[in-house]
Amino acid sequence: MDRHYIGIDLGGTNLRVAVVGRDKRVRGRHEAPTLAQEGPLAVVERLAQGVRAAAASAAVPLEDVAAVGIGAPGPLDAARGVVIEAPNLPGWIDFPVARRLREATGLEVYLENDANVAGYGEFWAGAGQGARTMVLLTLGTGIGGALIVDGRLHAGPDGTAGEIGHLCVADGGRRCACGRQGCLEAYASAPSTVARFREAARLGWPTRLDAREDLSCAAIFGAAAEGDDLARHIVAETGRYLGIMAGCMANLLNPDRCVFYGGMTRAGELLMAPIREACERQSFRTPFARMRILTAALGEDAGLLGAAACAMERHGAGAAG
Amino acid sequence: MDRHYIGIDLGGTNLRVAVVGRDKRVRGRHEAPTLAQEGPLAVVERLAQGVRAAAASAAVPLEDVAAVGIGAPGPLDAARGVVIEAPNLPGWIDFPVARRLREATGLEVYLENDANVAGYGEFWAGAGQGARTMVLLTLGTGIGGALIVDGRLHAGPDGTAGEIGHLCVADGGRRCACGRQGCLEAYASAPSTVARFREAARLGWPTRLDAREDLSCAAIFGAAAEGDDLARHIVAETGRYLGIMAGCMANLLNPDRCVFYGGMTRAGELLMAPIREACERQSFRTPFARMRILTAALGEDAGLLGAAACAMERHGAGAAG
Repeated sequence: MDRHYIGIDLGGTNLRVAVVGRDKRVRGRHEAPTLAQEGPLAVVERLAQGVRAAAASAAVPLEDVAAVGIGAPGPLDAARGVVIEAPNLPGWIDFPVARRLREATGLEVYLENDANVAGYGEFWAGAGQGARTMVLLTLGTGIGGALIVDGRLHAGPDGTAGEIGHLCVADGGRRCACGRQGCLEAYASAPSTVARFREAARLGWPTRLDAREDLSCAAIFGAAAEGDDLARHIVAETGRYLGIMAGCMANLLNPDRCVFYGGMTRAGELLMAPIREACERQSFRTPFARMRILTAALGEDAGLLGAAACAMERHGAGAAG
Repeated sequence: MDRHYIGIDLGGTNLRVAVVGRDKRVRGRHEAPTLAQEGPLAVVERLAQGVRAAAASAAVPLEDVAAVGIGAPGPLDAARGVVIEAPNLPGWIDFPVARRLREATGLEVYLENDANVAGYGEFWAGAGQGARTMVLLTLGTGIGGALIVDGRLHAGPDGTAGEIGHLCVADGGRRCACGRQGCLEAYASAPSTVARFREAARLGWPTRLDAREDLSCAAIFGAAAEGDDLARHIVAETGRYLGIMAGCMANLLNPDRCVFYGGMTRAGELLMAPIREACERQSFRTPFARMRILTAALGEDAGLLGAAACAMERHGAGAAG
């Protein structure tokens, strides 16, 4: 019998649950506010309700669910199913969410970090389909990533692999939120893009935008789309840094795909064209010719599908939940 | 029956052949000048003689040899066993060395690039033993590398993975031999170390060394060991750049080991101490705590053992030679 898997995207604001078949289709969904302030046990109860509700909406009995995968913000211990600390989930300190949800549902539960499930989701059912080796970069407040090497998620022995945002691209350069200097994230994250815009505006580069306190990265991308000269320059620079990193990944890993994920990718060619251009300059000819550079295809469902697919993979491999 | 494998280290000056058992021991060896100027067919004949001589010295009949692995300078097509171009081997343009040596010996022959066989050798029988995921950096005229991910050599679909020397560490920085700017190799290779020394000496930084035309990297390391202030500074900077990259690899891959290979590592703590220090600054705590930073253990035998081990691995997997 073809059993089903459940993927959970656990965020600080909302939790989303989906029943997913081996055919990569979502059969049923459930979404609810996380209400994280009520503490981890209340959230686990809400997750268990979500599992039952999603299964009901898919008309899949719980006995036909093989396993559950949770994508959660890190740092976490994927092997033991423990969230070590989650800034957006108050009280989640060394919290064994996999075991607790297993107790609440009777199902095997696997935990993986959110960038990894998004990456695995895109690899399994999105922009990475058909690839063997793929790099995913998640663009947002921070820059994260996921590596799929020869068909398998490479999380590393501690589950910390994929921190592409904290590779150094500019020795002695801009200060990163992590405290280091010159990290990719210090140049190309959403807040870093805003910071570079502000600095240039302050130096007198004319712009239609008001470089006021609450300037968002989306506003800069919008102004760039409308032809604002400074905004275009700043967005192109963000793309250039991301392209340098894509080229580094081509040289290092010779992957089939490099996939960009997150809200910033809505800028489309404004961002992707400079990414491709800088990537071509940085990478050798052969790996550049191999690597397709794409934006993610699944949107927010990448995490849901990836969490289900990770559960499928780990359940099949017999890993403990 | 426990069959044997033969590893070949094919260099521009010498060719070295070893018979290796599954116990990772070298049973017999042969070494000869490559005489590359005589052309590829003459070299293949010399390789075939080397295979027979090494087998004879090991008292292993050729029937007990399961396969031969060749480590050769790239670029090459490992899957097809073809050297695409080799600057130190005149006339080796799209040369199907694996097929030619198979015809000359009757043995299955597999080809892999020299950095990858060195990396796989260290992983299999040297500083990487017991690791699952390992990064090797080869330090010399250029900086190359090899990746072992979850127990397997990751060469990538084109066999070009591992070009760690051409990851950007300093956007807009020093010009690299590859034409790009800011590559690791532009800072931390042997010639780049010499170039940085010369520039500092030219600016008047006092040193006992004469920054004359034929200054070698080894001379700078020697002067550093003897306490020369400028030489120490330059060597420490070389280590710092290598350590930044080691830290980047820790953040990206969460490996068990990071192994430095090549003549420059004879500098020992002069180089390794700044590597560790910069690596700790660049990397997150958990992957840094995991990753042991070591110098290679096998010396020149890494390539021989690795070539044999690659043949063992690919022969077992049924890949064509």
